[in-house]
Amino acid sequence: MFAAVFGIKFRLDPETADAYFDIINAALAEPAFLPRALFERFGIEVLATTGGALDPLDHHRAIRASGWPGQVVPTFRPDDVVDPDREDFVTNLQRLGELTGENTSHWSGYLAALATRRAFFRTYGATATDHSHPTARTVDLSKTEAQALLDRILCGRAEAGDAELFRAHVLTQMALMACDDGMVMQLHPGSWRNYNPWLFRRFGGDMGADIPTRTDYVSGLKPLLDRVGMRAGFTLILFTLDESTYARELAPLTGHYPCLRLGPAWWFNDSPEGMLRFRRQTIETAGFYNTVGFNDDTRAFLSIPARHDLARRIDCAYLAELVVTSQLEEDEAVDLAFDLAYNLAKRVYRL
Amino acid sequence: MFAAVFGIKFRLDPETADAYFDIINAALAEPAFLPRALFERFGIEVLATTGGALDPLDHHRAIRASGWPGQVVPTFRPDDVVDPDREDFVTNLQRLGELTGENTSHWSGYLAALATRRAFFRTYGATATDHSHPTARTVDLSKTEAQALLDRILCGRAEAGDAELFRAHVLTQMALMACDDGMVMQLHPGSWRNYNPWLFRRFGGDMGADIPTRTDYVSGLKPLLDRVGMRAGFTLILFTLDESTYARELAPLTGHYPCLRLGPAWWFNDSPEGMLRFRRQTIETAGFYNTVGFNDDTRAFLSIPARHDLARRIDCAYLAELVVTSQLEEDEAVDLAFDLAYNLAKRVYRL
Amino acid sequence: MFAAVFGIKFRLDPETADAYFDIINAALAEPAFLPRALFERFGIEVLATTGGALDPLDHHRAIRASGWPGQVVPTFRPDDVVDPDREDFVTNLQRLGELTGENTSHWSGYLAALATRRAFFRTYGATATDHSHPTARTVDLSKTEAQALLDRILCGRAEAGDAELFRAHVLTQMALMACDDGMVMQLHPGSWRNYNPWLFRRFGGDMGADIPTRTDYVSGLKPLLDRVGMRAGFTLILFTLDESTYARELAPLTGHYPCLRLGPAWWFNDSPEGMLRFRRQTIETAGFYNTVGFNDDTRAFLSIPARHDLARRIDCAYLAELVVTSQLEEDEAVDLAFDLAYNLAKRVYRL
Repeated sequence: MFAAVFGIKFRLDPETADAYFDIINAALAEPAFLPRALFERFGIEVLATTGGALDPLDHHRAIRASGWPGQVVPTFRPDDVVDPDREDFVTNLQRLGELTGENTSHWSGYLAALATRRAFFRTYGATATDHSHPTARTVDLSKTEAQALLDRILCGRAEAGDAELFRAHVLTQMALMACDDGMVMQLHPGSWRNYNPWLFRRFGGDMGADIPTRTDYVSGLKPLLDRVGMRAGFTLILFTLDESTYARELAPLTGHYPCLRLGPAWWFNDSPEGMLRFRRQTIETAGFYNTVGFNDDTRAFLSIPARHDLARRIDCAYLAELVVTSQLEEDEAVDLAFDLAYNLAKRVYRL
Repeated sequence: MFAAVFGIKFRLDPETADAYFDIINAALAEPAFLPRALFERFGIEVLATTGGALDPLDHHRAIRASGWPGQVVPTFRPDDVVDPDREDFVTNLQRLGELTGENTSHWSGYLAALATRRAFFRTYGATATDHSHPTARTVDLSKTEAQALLDRILCGRAEAGDAELFRAHVLTQMALMACDDGMVMQLHPGSWRNYNPWLFRRFGGDMGADIPTRTDYVSGLKPLLDRVGMRAGFTLILFTLDESTYARELAPLTGHYPCLRLGPAWWFNDSPEGMLRFRRQTIETAGFYNTVGFNDDTRAFLSIPARHDLARRIDCAYLAELVVTSQLEEDEAVDLAFDLAYNLAKRVYRL
Repeated sequence: MFAAVFGIKFRLDPETADAYFDIINAALAEPAFLPRALFERFGIEVLATTGGALDPLDHHRAIRASGWPGQVVPTFRPDDVVDPDREDFVTNLQRLGELTGENTSHWSGYLAALATRRAFFRTYGATATDHSHPTARTVDLSKTEAQALLDRILCGRAEAGDAELFRAHVLTQMALMACDDGMVMQLHPGSWRNYNPWLFRRFGGDMGADIPTRTDYVSGLKPLLDRVGMRAGFTLILFTLDESTYARELAPLTGHYPCLRLGPAWWFNDSPEGMLRFRRQTIETAGFYNTVGFNDDTRAFLSIPARHDLARRIDCAYLAELVVTSQLEEDEAVDLAFDLAYNLAKRVYRL
């Protein structure tokens, strides 16, 4: 990143840290380092943000109004109105009702409100939803059960397990909506958010103390897959922080269900060894074309080229191994390299 | 397979698919591609089928009657009369009683019937049994408890967990019988069979939607091992679809118990990377001579040479690494290569 | 070991076994092979033993009295007075009370006695404690709850789970004491001790039939980390027999908490492949400087040089890979090699 973006040719260490600081600081003041200039310099074709269900997408509106041609689209990530463990959940549901004119204390109104917000996101170019859940659990409740569950949560009479049950059921409902409106669904499960209470008390949520947990996809996803796993046009992209599921659960599930795709090595696993383990443990069972290429969930805009560059190098190293061991021929590897780097992401995310 | 068996020298792709079809079709019509001709051409010394406890082994009888010298032996796989979750379980127990002249609604009659069928399989050359269970759980019940459990199941009063308990207890009984009759026991646990209900409703069972699950060997096998783990002459070969158990559970257990052996990388893991992970994660703790060589549970007869060829290449690649890193000397690696490819399977399976 | 320590240049095999025996036997009779001579020949700077809380450390006193300058220090491993599942637990608590003049049937007296023994170990140079628990579970009970728990255990009225609860709570207390007295804490969880009852009945405990089990660090350690995870000066070194936790749990936890360090690949994983997996699955997330170098828990004194030599070779092979793939520069790798081989252990263990 320092070399490619800032042109720094010497190593970062205690002696050179000040020089790094000065060079970066000077560069950031130049017009060439403004976000839109970098967007163009990086050759970004599409950049997707994520926003909560209540997000007014003001910045997306501003970009459109500005006339700038860069394609920046939102992703619908409704955790704010799906996770009853959030302190602001009840308030969020009220706001969701106000935004959409639906009665979100009725199960049908709640679902209609979600569908409305999905449509709103699509008007700004969204093609995907994203769901960050503690587990991969899904259930498929009746409408009566769902209403009773919602009632308990809204009245403060939620029992142990109700929050998990609610998230699990909404995930199945999101999958059903995806079958209707064609949005690609992404599931990022298995992170214990705000694990460190000291950090949470001092700095609030989402400050980095998120720790992976063991994740069960096979029994977790079954109710959802039983409901929509064979629907044409439905796509569910699975991510994991639990590598023990790569070969045991994710690759076999993805190899079987036409709707499933494997997201790239995620978060802590988004590293040279981690990316290589992802390929080695999934491809033989799931196949290259059930993966989605590399997507980068960085918050650091400047890191985008370096991260894509790394992912491409690791993928090419893996392909080269297959060529050297006569498992692929060279022209096949070249085609695959292009697909993994570019075409698959475009196709799967319907860009 | 295409190259070695059919002599095709060009790559399979959309352009050549028709040519492949024509060549294969033409070959299959020739006498040289009849099963017995291929058996001889492949140099197969023994081929083992698997049959349910009720299987009359008619085909085995026919082979023997034909005078053909190829050795095709059955394997006793009594899941049909061991798994109460099967719809035909009660009927199967009745048929088992009729076949053997035992009262299979009595626990002692049920066990005697199983022993009789094991003996019947041995008359056709069987040396092994095979057990496909959802988990590796075993228990060691008293006869009174076992009879009560059997009663509940046969009377349709089975409680939650009873089917699992029954399978778990019969597994221990099968181990005891193996101590008596010398048959080698194989356990293939951890597959969630018929996971996809759509497929099951449309095409019935065993159509491919089997998904691996997390498997616990350490607490699961303890009752069985407590009972027969130190018996001389007893052999239990363990397989897994959960690679996280290789280094943590299977290698330490196998390194400790004289009766245990590790089956080769199985099913989804029966691939270049999967086979290499098997060796890397088990051999240092379990040792080469606690593995059983490669055995191929393919349903595709024509794939046998290719699969054995692949397994041998991977094993030799692993051995070569050990030589290059001075962990083995070359002559030791050569001896091991022969043992892994041929001698171990013959010795462990008592062929 | 045979080459470096005994100078044997030919391979160990059935033909040479007698020659090996003779050479070793002759060598062991020579003064150069006495323990203190080997200690000096091996260049050992510090050797740490482990002793139970009741250990009078007589041998340590004898070494000091002898005037020999070799540094041999004890490690405080209080499992004898922490694990209520031990048959001698109640007796041990009485002896602990006698040794320290505390009433160990009172929770406060029990804690004071533990603190006293920690101090006693420190007078012989101990800088660390070690805790071998079946799981990584911790809890943080009130004093009233702790006293009630201790009462139930001492009166023989312990309920299911009480022994685990007691160990879990004492672990948190040990962490609090470590914050006070500066001893480095080590946790070795996840071994099912004396798994084989046949062996236990015949030869007693600790004879080798210990089998690893799945270990949960993330929920297990949370109560302890909630209590002391951010305390300056506290160090907790985590070991594992469950490699599936390397990338998923241990590396992220260690990367986050300043107090946590990763112990080296342990026991069954203390092998070329095992050590390499440890580095590959932890370093990218945890960083080299959150590991503690190699420490060798061998009971075989003569194996020490060979084991450290192996660990160093594996670490250097890993570093070399990083250099070859341009992830490290050579001078950085050289510095790291020295730190991993020597400096880190000295620094983390406060030697």
